[in-house]
Amino acid sequence: MSAESPPHPDHRDVEDLARGVRSGNRVSVARAITLIESRKPAHRVKARLLLTTLNDAAGSALRVGITGVPGAGKSTMIDALGTLLVRKGHRVAVLAVDPSSTRSGGAILGDKTRMATLAAEENAFIRPSPSSGTLGGVARTTRETILLCEAAGFDVILVETVGVGQSEVTVAGMVDFFLLLMIAGGGDELQGIKKGVMELADMIAITKADSGNEHAARRAAGDYRAGLHILTPASATWKPPVITISSRDGIGLEDLWANVLSHRATLEATGEFASKRRDQDVRWMHAMIEDQIRQAFLTNEAATAKIEALESEVRRGAKPPSVAADEVTSLIFGRA
Amino acid sequence: MSAESPPHPDHRDVEDLARGVRSGNRVSVARAITLIESRKPAHRVKARLLLTTLNDAAGSALRVGITGVPGAGKSTMIDALGTLLVRKGHRVAVLAVDPSSTRSGGAILGDKTRMATLAAEENAFIRPSPSSGTLGGVARTTRETILLCEAAGFDVILVETVGVGQSEVTVAGMVDFFLLLMIAGGGDELQGIKKGVMELADMIAITKADSGNEHAARRAAGDYRAGLHILTPASATWKPPVITISSRDGIGLEDLWANVLSHRATLEATGEFASKRRDQDVRWMHAMIEDQIRQAFLTNEAATAKIEALESEVRRGAKPPSVAADEVTSLIFGRA
Repeated sequence: MSAESPPHPDHRDVEDLARGVRSGNRVSVARAITLIESRKPAHRVKARLLLTTLNDAAGSALRVGITGVPGAGKSTMIDALGTLLVRKGHRVAVLAVDPSSTRSGGAILGDKTRMATLAAEENAFIRPSPSSGTLGGVARTTRETILLCEAAGFDVILVETVGVGQSEVTVAGMVDFFLLLMIAGGGDELQGIKKGVMELADMIAITKADSGNEHAARRAAGDYRAGLHILTPASATWKPPVITISSRDGIGLEDLWANVLSHRATLEATGEFASKRRDQDVRWMHAMIEDQIRQAFLTNEAATAKIEALESEVRRGAKPPSVAADEVTSLIFGRA
Repeated sequence: MSAESPPHPDHRDVEDLARGVRSGNRVSVARAITLIESRKPAHRVKARLLLTTLNDAAGSALRVGITGVPGAGKSTMIDALGTLLVRKGHRVAVLAVDPSSTRSGGAILGDKTRMATLAAEENAFIRPSPSSGTLGGVARTTRETILLCEAAGFDVILVETVGVGQSEVTVAGMVDFFLLLMIAGGGDELQGIKKGVMELADMIAITKADSGNEHAARRAAGDYRAGLHILTPASATWKPPVITISSRDGIGLEDLWANVLSHRATLEATGEFASKRRDQDVRWMHAMIEDQIRQAFLTNEAATAKIEALESEVRRGAKPPSVAADEVTSLIFGRA
């Protein structure tokens, strides 16, 4: 109190990094992402400090989640939409949530190759999925990366999910708008989409409404429009539209973006836009707490071996599941 | 090993109780349910022993979950269906999952009053929802009660859910067949059903297709039938039918039950019936482990107070969710 103490070296580091991120410096953004992706306790301390420092920028971008059935042309669509947005003057970050990914030069190259036009834009930033193994880990770093990108001045964040495990639910829980890409396929395309995903969608876009295929796409759109009637809308004030687009021919992307903006305006008018973000943040906090507790207790060798053995007993009907569960928790808590 | 030791008194108790349950003695079944509902560690030890003893009877009943929108007449329908099944020679147990319930004389009376015809049947057993507070607790005792009822010779278990919180997902995860009751209501009825529930259904029954209302019910059935096309079926071999019923006029209940049996026959033919049960058991074991760990760490006073304080900081945007989560887990694990 009496004399000014020099800032803690860690703090100075982090302040420099925060300044770099805020100036939009790509090297700083990349270094910040590497820091938040690290699981070392010392790095987590720094990451917490960095995120707290940059927290005032949280929520400054429009966050759009994108999923789709295999074959819907997700990369092509993101490449086309991202390029359109950059040319409109936006700064666009593309993040991915793929719990099955592994960090490799190939994956990064892959992401930039499959979105070649967008990757060449100065005002675009493409980041492959973090690969910390669990969906919880991938989700954490992606959410924190969104915050870093917002601090760096990106005003549109596109979060792509590959649809592995619960990744759609996870991504829908971190974005303002969730877009589902489907194709006209006579019902077969439904095999590629998991239960519950349809109801997460704020809009469905039937892709590949390319020249010659418009009729099939429009018919599919009509089917989805009729079908959505039996589903509970996410918001009382927003009815998910069904549109057709052709990324190849550049058709429907302006309409798509107009719908995203109209959704924001509609939900902002009722206060839902802000309250949805607050709810997402609170749920996210709880999910992270549970994930970390699970990690702490269920990933050690003894617990893993015990769970595996009991799982096979339960699977062949030799032991009631609740008895097996009690045995695991007895092991964890050291009770008889 | 050398001399026979007398059975442990607890074991003798439990063996008596198990014998009583197997003989279908109602007092024994009620005592066994009271035992498994107890959270006292000594009772849990006995309950584990009881469940392990009775485990050979697990899965001997057909388990049907029932949910519906408010106003669909769930109790009336269960009363009518249960009575029909008893008269066909079945022994029917009705259980409920209502995480909001409180144990009271009134609730038990209520359950028997709202299913008055069924309650009067010798071969029916109606048990109100356990009230152990959390959905995890209610789910555990309900699953264990299913096992007790199966050991007691009930061959049809109807599990009703009131649709609070995640209770539909929980019930769908413990039954062979999940039935959704809807009414003809021009879209308003959708407000009463939570997201994702439609896709859990193995069948939709439009209720109150009473004399004079058949046309509206049939039209609603057609709408749902068309709408289901855009949803991913739970099984590749079973397309959820949409039927109309009138519990009041006793119409459609035979058809309803025929569909439940047809579902079982179809899934048994492919092996899905047994594999679905095994998967449910394994998932159930994991859910219980996580629930118990969560209970152990997140329900003490210090953790609850800390979480509440951080939740309000996160809600007003003063702290990033992941930073708040780290603070909670630091408190739990005693790290800085």
